[in-house]
Amino acid sequence: MAIKLYELCGRDPGQLFSPHCWKVRLALRHKGLDFETVPVPFTKIPDVEGGASKTIPVIRDGDKVVADSFKIAEYLDETYPSAPTLFGGEGGRQLSRFVESWSQRVIHPALAKMLILDIHDILSDTDQAYFRQSREKAIGKPLETIVEGREAHVEAFLKSLEPLRGLLGSRSFIGGETPLFADFIVFGPFQWARVASAFSILPKADPVAEWFERCLDLYEAEGRKVPAAA
Amino acid sequence: MAIKLYELCGRDPGQLFSPHCWKVRLALRHKGLDFETVPVPFTKIPDVEGGASKTIPVIRDGDKVVADSFKIAEYLDETYPSAPTLFGGEGGRQLSRFVESWSQRVIHPALAKMLILDIHDILSDTDQAYFRQSREKAIGKPLETIVEGREAHVEAFLKSLEPLRGLLGSRSFIGGETPLFADFIVFGPFQWARVASAFSILPKADPVAEWFERCLDLYEAEGRKVPAAA
Repeated sequence: MAIKLYELCGRDPGQLFSPHCWKVRLALRHKGLDFETVPVPFTKIPDVEGGASKTIPVIRDGDKVVADSFKIAEYLDETYPSAPTLFGGEGGRQLSRFVESWSQRVIHPALAKMLILDIHDILSDTDQAYFRQSREKAIGKPLETIVEGREAHVEAFLKSLEPLRGLLGSRSFIGGETPLFADFIVFGPFQWARVASAFSILPKADPVAEWFERCLDLYEAEGRKVPAAA
Repeated sequence: MAIKLYELCGRDPGQLFSPHCWKVRLALRHKGLDFETVPVPFTKIPDVEGGASKTIPVIRDGDKVVADSFKIAEYLDETYPSAPTLFGGEGGRQLSRFVESWSQRVIHPALAKMLILDIHDILSDTDQAYFRQSREKAIGKPLETIVEGREAHVEAFLKSLEPLRGLLGSRSFIGGETPLFADFIVFGPFQWARVASAFSILPKADPVAEWFERCLDLYEAEGRKVPAAA
């Protein structure tokens, strides 16, 4: 039986934009596992698998329900060891946490600051109300104020990518000549930006942009199945 | 026969301060390998192993001469596979390059900007002349100007450590519950700062400082064998 993948969606159920869900989608493709998607809007997350988790992605694989993108990747590598590896061994599993920490503290907040209103705009009316209220309460500002003058943040953001850019000068993927889960960890937020917003951030000739295009091409261009925001 | 490790030294041959040499010193201790040190001042590097490399560390292991800290770690893990691993497998080897890229683009330049004059000051007279001329030519400023107002850079530097700090909230080492070469990669520049300069950067209660102290304690407190600058 195919694995069930619960993924966050916008107003259109095909508009899959969650960075963390994308990590898992590419992980499943990387391992060559069959899966079916269950698109879930923000306000329906409490219904997923009887309230299994406050966040998605969640997967069901037979009797097993697993939440959290990193834990799902660990589950997949342990459960399907003969399929291509996501971590490349124990050291890779440990250091993927450093990549995750970097991505979530450098890339996610910077993109959220520039794109939070665009993310709001692709949601259903019910989700928009929830999203605006919860985010504005957490951040203490209207979404419109958060993204004000966002053009001014692009340069510092591009500079903060220097560790990734430097690495990609001598290799195709973060994982080396072929991708690892570490690539999907960093792909997630860039795909979030691509699907939710037309705001241009990465110059085409940036090695990070070239790497992102390579990731979009993986597994019969899985990442391109959802169109970029126009 | 013991491995020979060529390490950069200050005016005092016991004053080992090079970040890259420290990575290798801890790697050799981690693997439990016998080694003897050959302290080398900057201006004597061309004499090491008949000009084998423009930089040190260099090791000689029997007939084999290897330069570059990362390549030395790879050599040691391949050559002594039954000793404790430095990478934890192929994925760990690949992702250690990301940690290296982050360390060299975030930590090294920030520390160099604050400490370059202190580093100059621990060198022999001959090395001081070489160091000042080469660095001032490369950077285009007198060393004294580079470090001017360095107190103002501490806050931004501490903020740039957030990906490491966040990771260390839930684990003892970058490698997990035990260290990997990735730990030594990041230890190197902090040890460089500790040995060369009394300028205070990390607050004691910072999880990064606590991790650094744990690294100093490793292998019978190898890192404490060279005293902190007074």
